[in-house]
Amino acid sequence: MSSGPPRAVYFLSDYGTEDEFAGVVRAVLFRLAPDVTVVDLSHEVPPFDVAAGAAMLERSVSHLGAGVVLAVVDPGVGTDRRGVAVHIAGAPAAAPTWLVGPDNGLLVPAADRLGGADRVVELAPRDGSATTFDGRDLFAPAAAHLVRGGDPDAIGTRVAPDTLIRPGESSGREPAGAAPAGARGSPTGTVVASVTWIDRFGNVQLDLGPDDLDRLGLALGGRTDVELTGPAGTTATHGHPFSARRVRSFAELGAGELGVLVDANGRVALVFDRASAAGALGFAGPGAQPQVRFRVLREDPSG
Amino acid sequence: MSSGPPRAVYFLSDYGTEDEFAGVVRAVLFRLAPDVTVVDLSHEVPPFDVAAGAAMLERSVSHLGAGVVLAVVDPGVGTDRRGVAVHIAGAPAAAPTWLVGPDNGLLVPAADRLGGADRVVELAPRDGSATTFDGRDLFAPAAAHLVRGGDPDAIGTRVAPDTLIRPGESSGREPAGAAPAGARGSPTGTVVASVTWIDRFGNVQLDLGPDDLDRLGLALGGRTDVELTGPAGTTATHGHPFSARRVRSFAELGAGELGVLVDANGRVALVFDRASAAGALGFAGPGAQPQVRFRVLREDPSG
Amino acid sequence: MSSGPPRAVYFLSDYGTEDEFAGVVRAVLFRLAPDVTVVDLSHEVPPFDVAAGAAMLERSVSHLGAGVVLAVVDPGVGTDRRGVAVHIAGAPAAAPTWLVGPDNGLLVPAADRLGGADRVVELAPRDGSATTFDGRDLFAPAAAHLVRGGDPDAIGTRVAPDTLIRPGESSGREPAGAAPAGARGSPTGTVVASVTWIDRFGNVQLDLGPDDLDRLGLALGGRTDVELTGPAGTTATHGHPFSARRVRSFAELGAGELGVLVDANGRVALVFDRASAAGALGFAGPGAQPQVRFRVLREDPSG
Repeated sequence: MSSGPPRAVYFLSDYGTEDEFAGVVRAVLFRLAPDVTVVDLSHEVPPFDVAAGAAMLERSVSHLGAGVVLAVVDPGVGTDRRGVAVHIAGAPAAAPTWLVGPDNGLLVPAADRLGGADRVVELAPRDGSATTFDGRDLFAPAAAHLVRGGDPDAIGTRVAPDTLIRPGESSGREPAGAAPAGARGSPTGTVVASVTWIDRFGNVQLDLGPDDLDRLGLALGGRTDVELTGPAGTTATHGHPFSARRVRSFAELGAGELGVLVDANGRVALVFDRASAAGALGFAGPGAQPQVRFRVLREDPSG
Repeated sequence: MSSGPPRAVYFLSDYGTEDEFAGVVRAVLFRLAPDVTVVDLSHEVPPFDVAAGAAMLERSVSHLGAGVVLAVVDPGVGTDRRGVAVHIAGAPAAAPTWLVGPDNGLLVPAADRLGGADRVVELAPRDGSATTFDGRDLFAPAAAHLVRGGDPDAIGTRVAPDTLIRPGESSGREPAGAAPAGARGSPTGTVVASVTWIDRFGNVQLDLGPDDLDRLGLALGGRTDVELTGPAGTTATHGHPFSARRVRSFAELGAGELGVLVDANGRVALVFDRASAAGALGFAGPGAQPQVRFRVLREDPSG
Repeated sequence: MSSGPPRAVYFLSDYGTEDEFAGVVRAVLFRLAPDVTVVDLSHEVPPFDVAAGAAMLERSVSHLGAGVVLAVVDPGVGTDRRGVAVHIAGAPAAAPTWLVGPDNGLLVPAADRLGGADRVVELAPRDGSATTFDGRDLFAPAAAHLVRGGDPDAIGTRVAPDTLIRPGESSGREPAGAAPAGARGSPTGTVVASVTWIDRFGNVQLDLGPDDLDRLGLALGGRTDVELTGPAGTTATHGHPFSARRVRSFAELGAGELGVLVDANGRVALVFDRASAAGALGFAGPGAQPQVRFRVLREDPSG
């Protein structure tokens, strides 16, 4: 750690506190920078609301001390949106010098409030990490590296500060709803799964791994029917099957499209892009959950 | 830092966790006392509920170690209620020696549980600070000063311990409701503002600063009509205009009185005293918010 | 503290954040191990849901650094269920080496994920502690002891790892509902109490201490009628009286049985086993609460 005033990581996100997302990121920060204090600003930015997060960060930032801001409100996680570390020009000694997070407008108002960016590093993706939890796998390691005084060029490539996306410039993707699937062709494989977790964002985690999808014949980009039945031991069916597509990231999904992806824990999950799969599919609150039956079709018609 | 066992700041408030209030106070504590651990007790005391906060603190205090209690449940912020630091007589080495917060009964049961107050310092207001966020601007700096072993006489004036307000002695102000305004006189100025934030307490922050109020001709104590219209680009009006008064603190407002004040971020906000302005004015949840039109009257009738 | 990488206590519970439970445990950890960082994973495991807590801990544990996991989801607190510290065989240097919590299946999936338990210590109860808050009184002190490198044999007795209860093996006790009491015999004592706190779990704390129960003639195992009347100064009665039994722990109660116990703060509380007494008795949200009248009967019929 280089000299100067003690530094903290100031951590803001839309992770909520019901799940372990924020806690796991704190654990990663401790593992990589154990001498550094983590100051939680808030983790209850409304899910996916980049503008609300940017406003909260802008309000907060002039009261922070030395260190690094770690901010994650990131509906584009897993797409080609950049992860960035933004350096502040001439920040006073008792103010943050770096802001780390997605390049989607979240960081810019706070950076401007602190004096403006004079250097931006586009973070290099880390090998083998998941594509849905960059807070844990990309941003926290970068923040830990920088707060310890590490070389910024070791974690990415310099890009021009004026290429940062400003608030409101992010893409116009809309929250999606569920589209029922028609009966199309004959199945090549089926599997029945149980729900293991419904997280704050409404993602429905199942007791399946990537190997199960391979056995099912569901490759990336491939389609499957998804049908909800009663809890284990019952036979009731919950309405029509839904059509879903296997993707690597939430944002690959269009409006009205249900996705199947391998989540940050290596489990298969049913997801929407910036909407609750649990809500759209009619999962209720606590209690016995329906089971999920996948049927993969030989051919993939219009969908 | 003076010798003795390691010390923490034990932090309790009604700030909630959805907004950044508690986080910004933690950041101020880190900036001023970076070697000191902050132990969050809870920030979910029901808003403004001094008795609930006092009970929670009393239940907790015998389990705390050395250091300073920072407790903020403070409906009287900005009034002439005192901010105090309460010293405990003969506290054991592994117990808090100071309790910092508003003099409204919040601290006394915990102080009694620890052995009773033998010294009380009335905190001197800090120049240039806001009048609505003493947790950030007054109490956290005092707690940081004391936990580092600073001289208590440097941050205020000694007062007699028996002048502390005990629980239930606080003033009998009632939560306020909104009073519709009549049509009274002709406007001297109008401005239309957009909502930028609705916080946990229902305060409605607008995209206006103090300069806008000056241009509008709305001085401290002056009155304005406030009218809600549809979101930008629409013309629907949401019922009758409300009458509001420009104040410096929440507690200057009477029951049923809407206030306009410059908040702790330097922005103009619509507020009530210990009630939700957003609720009283009919702001709904997420989604496009109405705009807010101010019309300042030449004369200020009964109201 | 022994050598090696810096260590943290990773803390997961169902304590929620509205009350001070998690905060008081953090304070105890600070008091006993002030140099150790506490990393909160989440405190919003659904109340009493051991399986959900075990799943959350299993998902988290491979991302944690060196130190000790403290996990508390503990519907059996106060029964003869064991408290345990589980040592991980051959854990990598940057992974937790001990997991501390109740022996109810909560820890086993995470321990297996880390490599499996090679040593288990059954924690010795601590003299004079309450029977309802082992997180504060038993588990946090054990975690603090171990994270500082203390001798495991100083806090309990070694037991065979294969005696750990695995997930789903816990007892089949069901959430309880309230049973109305019949009129049975003549009272030997009555007392009227006011509600001082309703916590996250729906326990109803009263302004009575153990001495009041003794004066009332309500010994351990004894029965009392409990009647709700209007707030102080009113006379309305809320339905029939309920029958309650004085117990030392939640889990002594059967299904449908209301309990009276001395809680972790030394106050008398109305409780159910894994259900909300406030809900079952019809306590509404904020506002004036009914008073609680106890009538202890000379004889204890069937109930």
